[in-house]
Amino acid sequence: MQIIDGTIASPKGFYATGLHAGLKKEKKDLGVIYSEVPANAAAVYTTNQVKAAPIFVTKEAMKDTTIQAVVVNSGIANACTGKLGLENAKEMQAITGTHLNIPQESVAVASTGVIGKQLPMEIIEAGISNIDLEKPEPYAFHEAILTTDTATKEIVITEEINGQQVTMAGVAKGSGMIHPNMATMLAFITTDAQISEELLQEILAVKTETTFNQITVDGDTSTNDMVLVLANGLAENPVIEKNSKAFEQFVAMFQLVSETLAKKIAKDGEGATKLIEAQVVGALNGSEARLVAKKVVGSSLVKTAMFGEDPNWGRIICAVGYAGSHTDPEKIDMWIGDQQLLKNSQPQEFDETIMKQTLEKEKINITVDLNIGEQSGQAWGCDLTYKYVEVNALYHT
Amino acid sequence: MQIIDGTIASPKGFYATGLHAGLKKEKKDLGVIYSEVPANAAAVYTTNQVKAAPIFVTKEAMKDTTIQAVVVNSGIANACTGKLGLENAKEMQAITGTHLNIPQESVAVASTGVIGKQLPMEIIEAGISNIDLEKPEPYAFHEAILTTDTATKEIVITEEINGQQVTMAGVAKGSGMIHPNMATMLAFITTDAQISEELLQEILAVKTETTFNQITVDGDTSTNDMVLVLANGLAENPVIEKNSKAFEQFVAMFQLVSETLAKKIAKDGEGATKLIEAQVVGALNGSEARLVAKKVVGSSLVKTAMFGEDPNWGRIICAVGYAGSHTDPEKIDMWIGDQQLLKNSQPQEFDETIMKQTLEKEKINITVDLNIGEQSGQAWGCDLTYKYVEVNALYHT
Repeated sequence: MQIIDGTIASPKGFYATGLHAGLKKEKKDLGVIYSEVPANAAAVYTTNQVKAAPIFVTKEAMKDTTIQAVVVNSGIANACTGKLGLENAKEMQAITGTHLNIPQESVAVASTGVIGKQLPMEIIEAGISNIDLEKPEPYAFHEAILTTDTATKEIVITEEINGQQVTMAGVAKGSGMIHPNMATMLAFITTDAQISEELLQEILAVKTETTFNQITVDGDTSTNDMVLVLANGLAENPVIEKNSKAFEQFVAMFQLVSETLAKKIAKDGEGATKLIEAQVVGALNGSEARLVAKKVVGSSLVKTAMFGEDPNWGRIICAVGYAGSHTDPEKIDMWIGDQQLLKNSQPQEFDETIMKQTLEKEKINITVDLNIGEQSGQAWGCDLTYKYVEVNALYHT
Repeated sequence: MQIIDGTIASPKGFYATGLHAGLKKEKKDLGVIYSEVPANAAAVYTTNQVKAAPIFVTKEAMKDTTIQAVVVNSGIANACTGKLGLENAKEMQAITGTHLNIPQESVAVASTGVIGKQLPMEIIEAGISNIDLEKPEPYAFHEAILTTDTATKEIVITEEINGQQVTMAGVAKGSGMIHPNMATMLAFITTDAQISEELLQEILAVKTETTFNQITVDGDTSTNDMVLVLANGLAENPVIEKNSKAFEQFVAMFQLVSETLAKKIAKDGEGATKLIEAQVVGALNGSEARLVAKKVVGSSLVKTAMFGEDPNWGRIICAVGYAGSHTDPEKIDMWIGDQQLLKNSQPQEFDETIMKQTLEKEKINITVDLNIGEQSGQAWGCDLTYKYVEVNALYHT
């Protein structure tokens, strides 16, 4: 398995582009992914009960077995926009289908941005008419889906599966309102692998639990967001069967793409200066390990301590204690980096110079051993900074 | 029912004092409440699985039917301190009992402050020996239990019950690590009412659900905290029986004391400039209404919006949507102050000048009508500010 330079259009038969339509002041705000043949597709959506209009349109499109294009806008979320919002999302789908000369029902739609504003359809329509897939600019798609993100988020990997070179690419946007409970950001994954839609959906659902759902920026689960996977089969590998070697290879690729995007989203949390990774081991089961890890990286007090580069293990053990998993409060071990801070819940001497160096880094690893079982889990978050308050206090509706 | 000036020692037969023992640099850090006769007592404790040593000692003391004194220190939480911490908490109890000439088992113990440090027992012992209840300074007790709080928090009310003047007083500390799931702060309530221990515990448990448990500062549930109620009976009212008029009067007093202390804690959240009150109506049941209200005031994005004085209802409806209660996403009404922002989940025109004035105030009321039932609930929180980040990033262990 090899990480290569590339874009969401790197797998065979995929095209992508993006442009500035006019929803945002200057930045790119409209993008399309297109597959030259219909692709098997799978998706997971936000569990927020208040869902944006494009979620409903994409869910409906997914009832057909294939998807051939995805149209995405940033700037406006098309959430809490009622019947008109739903009509606009369908219209956006229809215009894209017409422009690309494919059925409307094979177009997935996604939006991200401010809640409660209607999409200005003349801007959307003019923008889509300017999409030119004969001169694609795939990296422009990566830019077009961003909101307060400070960087694009992508990964491309390739691997020989059953004698054919299979490529998988992922692109995501994140930043604020990030606490997925299914998937609270936009992430798109393309691959030229041949795999059934059922198996694709199964892998997506399982892997979302340990990757996208294990990141948190601010504990807020968005109304809009989704992870969408397209597999167009153009690598011409024999169809991947469950529990084969090819299946294992494909799942490993999927894990790497999802985990990499998830970490990039956490690291680029609004105002963040550090990526915090919590590894919980010795848990009774994996879901409890993930729960504890997510509580640790989600704690405002842990987040501010990491911003202050302070090894404040009291706040970490406090978060472990309220996570709600099985725990023996007397048996907790804890490390920051490779320095042990707690053994059987008691403070340990550590090297303050090494600790200082550890906390100055852009990535901080917190490890907690519950010492009551054999299972483990991870979660990713970021520090809580002055900049987070600034971004969100000054971001006026 | 009348609110009066006073202290935790205002009910008949109670004494209180506080002093600087030396756990903190300069501020008062040790305090005692004493009742001249043994008092019926009730308590609720943190649900954090990692509990501080004084929690165990107080729980044990509560097995006896009466409590005659409470000793509290700030500066050091005596949490994650192992066997020595437990011995120290018991020693603190014993020294207080000896000094006040009452049984050790009738002394409740509480601590608040930094996690993981051992109590310096010579300082505690010297401090307790300087407690002089012949020259009590009750307000000094209010000061002695504070940590990063910027103000003391107290309320005293009096009411004639069955021909006798009954007084009830409450004092609390809060500020950070405030997201009670039972009671994540220290609060002490004294009354001279005659009431059984069983009824006192029942009222405390019920009222904690709608008052102390409905505040949140940062979503972190502390290891240490408790609400403790003492009723010494010196008002000589006939013993309050359940479902009597006296019972209703007493419960109303208890509600006012608890709710007032809870709001004062939320308002004095670390770095806070505003108290945010969420009122959720039209819910299927009270616990769901409280859940939704607590999610709204707990959202970092709502908190930063209120700091930025921005009527960002998108973040509020987002929090309603992920709270996990029964909701019809199309039927939500919302107000900030008396300005309606949403009707049937759709944006409404509002007066921007009045809204600006509303958001500039120190208390902001958010009202959400779910329009699916008859029940309501409230929660209290504060805004998220630069100062919160500063307090918690610079507060080094």
